[in-house]
Amino acid sequence: MSTFVQVPAESDFPIQNLPYGIFSTSCNANRRVGVAIGEQILDLSAVANFYPEYVQNALRANVLNPLMALGYDAWNDVRTITRDLLLAGSSLDKNEELKKRAIFKQSDSTMHLPASIGDYTDFYSSIHHATNVGIMFRGKENALMPNWKYLPVGYHGRASSVVVSGTPINRPLGQTQPVDGEAPVFGPCRLMDFELEMAFFIGGPPTKLGERVTTKEAAKRVFGFVLMNDWSARDVQKWEYVPLGPFTAKNLGTSISAWVVPVAALQPFAVPNFPQEPKPFPYLQHDEVFNFNIELFVDIKPENGTQVTVSHSNYRHLYWTALQQIAHHSVTGCNLNPGDLLASGTISGETEDSYGSMLEISWKGTRSISVGENQTRKFLQDGDEVVIRGFCNGDYRIGFGDVRGKVLPAIPFEN
Amino acid sequence: MSTFVQVPAESDFPIQNLPYGIFSTSCNANRRVGVAIGEQILDLSAVANFYPEYVQNALRANVLNPLMALGYDAWNDVRTITRDLLLAGSSLDKNEELKKRAIFKQSDSTMHLPASIGDYTDFYSSIHHATNVGIMFRGKENALMPNWKYLPVGYHGRASSVVVSGTPINRPLGQTQPVDGEAPVFGPCRLMDFELEMAFFIGGPPTKLGERVTTKEAAKRVFGFVLMNDWSARDVQKWEYVPLGPFTAKNLGTSISAWVVPVAALQPFAVPNFPQEPKPFPYLQHDEVFNFNIELFVDIKPENGTQVTVSHSNYRHLYWTALQQIAHHSVTGCNLNPGDLLASGTISGETEDSYGSMLEISWKGTRSISVGENQTRKFLQDGDEVVIRGFCNGDYRIGFGDVRGKVLPAIPFEN
Repeated sequence: MSTFVQVPAESDFPIQNLPYGIFSTSCNANRRVGVAIGEQILDLSAVANFYPEYVQNALRANVLNPLMALGYDAWNDVRTITRDLLLAGSSLDKNEELKKRAIFKQSDSTMHLPASIGDYTDFYSSIHHATNVGIMFRGKENALMPNWKYLPVGYHGRASSVVVSGTPINRPLGQTQPVDGEAPVFGPCRLMDFELEMAFFIGGPPTKLGERVTTKEAAKRVFGFVLMNDWSARDVQKWEYVPLGPFTAKNLGTSISAWVVPVAALQPFAVPNFPQEPKPFPYLQHDEVFNFNIELFVDIKPENGTQVTVSHSNYRHLYWTALQQIAHHSVTGCNLNPGDLLASGTISGETEDSYGSMLEISWKGTRSISVGENQTRKFLQDGDEVVIRGFCNGDYRIGFGDVRGKVLPAIPFEN
Repeated sequence: MSTFVQVPAESDFPIQNLPYGIFSTSCNANRRVGVAIGEQILDLSAVANFYPEYVQNALRANVLNPLMALGYDAWNDVRTITRDLLLAGSSLDKNEELKKRAIFKQSDSTMHLPASIGDYTDFYSSIHHATNVGIMFRGKENALMPNWKYLPVGYHGRASSVVVSGTPINRPLGQTQPVDGEAPVFGPCRLMDFELEMAFFIGGPPTKLGERVTTKEAAKRVFGFVLMNDWSARDVQKWEYVPLGPFTAKNLGTSISAWVVPVAALQPFAVPNFPQEPKPFPYLQHDEVFNFNIELFVDIKPENGTQVTVSHSNYRHLYWTALQQIAHHSVTGCNLNPGDLLASGTISGETEDSYGSMLEISWKGTRSISVGENQTRKFLQDGDEVVIRGFCNGDYRIGFGDVRGKVLPAIPFEN
């Protein structure tokens, strides 16, 4: 397959990828549906009339929710037509005037949140991460909670505070308990952390309250994946989370990458699902392979420093699949909507260089890592930019771009 | 103050109340903004031209979010004009043709969810409830967690599963662990429960990520209150909630009453804030009284049985105020949007007859209560309808209507 758009070697966005995003340009502030190709964006609103009528409104929307809602067959239709339009010799290729109106440089564009996120859920599906955190806080014997291998543990997150890559995050103020058993203090978070995650958007029509989505149905409900940095105030979390879970330690901001990579683009990189023992309940079982070899990297770029990789992990380390996450999410009857965002939880591998958070990398702050000349870190400092990158590598690369965000100083409190 | 609409004695909706709701009628399926008065609804979309131009679009919307977004001063403007329109001798009173187009019987109307709820948060702010649950699960010595008196403990809930009064709720399927230390089982929830709560909607313009709302600013951010039944699968919750909090045990449905009672209507029933010791951090302090004497009742009506009151509680039992809940919610920078719903958590009083859940009333299933002739309950049975009512009583009554929902049998699992 060869496209008329120039695609650099090692680009995240060859014609095999075709991820969706919402973008605007300096000449046109309207938010439009775009597809990344090389270093360009194809504006689907400008070529909508090449597509079947039933998808055209979705391609002219300012968020991806309508396209997500159309469902699996529509996604395949749109993907096929988009690919054909981008092939050398296509009707688009031959139309110079239309190309000028429909193709934009990514470097001249602003990316926006891809969807209006109705609800955001965060799982805890990496066995290495859950084990590491468990060892730190409860010791080796009780590392994994008894429920962990029976169900994909998860919790409801804050949808309003999900932001697109590039949004800076202020170090939060909050309550922490520096010494166990003593009174808490109020002030800037001291243990600011990232969490290396991936997340997917729900597609298809809204389900009804009381309706369950089976693992079989779930396969057609995954619209596509993004990278995620679930910023975490570890000291705030430790003090607040008992007994109802993390709250203000997480709602200070959750960053996602701008491009949503379709499942179809990931399928050539499928790898066997993580072995599960004990065998899960029937409602969590599925034969379909739904695990992917996606290499993940976390870099830290200190203010005035150079970007250093501090973690190299992989999506394949997840114990629970996206299909199991969906089936479990809805098992008690929770309704799902197109645009809902379901995240993996921190993705850690087995080895220290693949841990997905500073909490694990610094082992609860007991060791430092180097982030460039004369610079060490246990947790994040003001001015640090965190960059998460990810891609599948083969004959071509299916990449996610990146999700980046800089830690800004805390804003002083005034009552 | 005398209105031309006939208001029965003991009505929840005298002219001093004027709660907002979203309704439709058999002749007009469009959802419109209405105000309850006696047994009638004033259709604000039909009288919008009596209001200043800057609020008219909000009065013609199909959810309350635009009105909520306009903010405190607009709410006062709208309330004053609505009251004046309903007074005997008003221009509306004198216009028989307009009255026919603008006033509808509640009994001929269908109520809808009052707002598009972006995010839903549930607090845990009743000291008696938190203490009771603590005693049951951790013993008397460790009943209240160390953080409880320092911050309003809360967690993010599921916005999609918030439904309006009258929506039936299917008994959920889920995982439970009937015997501690043994393997879990999958099947219908056995310990289905209600939670007596109240909740309020956030108003004013959206805040930005990183922005904090002080307790002082918070007072102008509370649009109005509703009754809430936060349905809970206790056995599912016990198994799943460690370490990230309740998830599928709660997202099976949360019911709210249809009428949103403005703070202005509650102010004559203000009572001193709950005494707080230790004194909270400055960001949680406020002088303003923001506690209300709202009597709350939970009734159970078994299938083919009669409605029996099983709890009589009061909003005033809450330790943390709504203003403190808002300030804490945003202290780490979480952005708030008009239409966000913040709930109190189960409101229990000190005495057994004022407990706000079957978990407490049956003391973890160790005692039964009577719900009519030859009928006893420890938890809810299929066919039980739960009805929560609430009102302030004085020279007149400021009521909330009710929030009701019936427990339907579990839907069998098919993969």
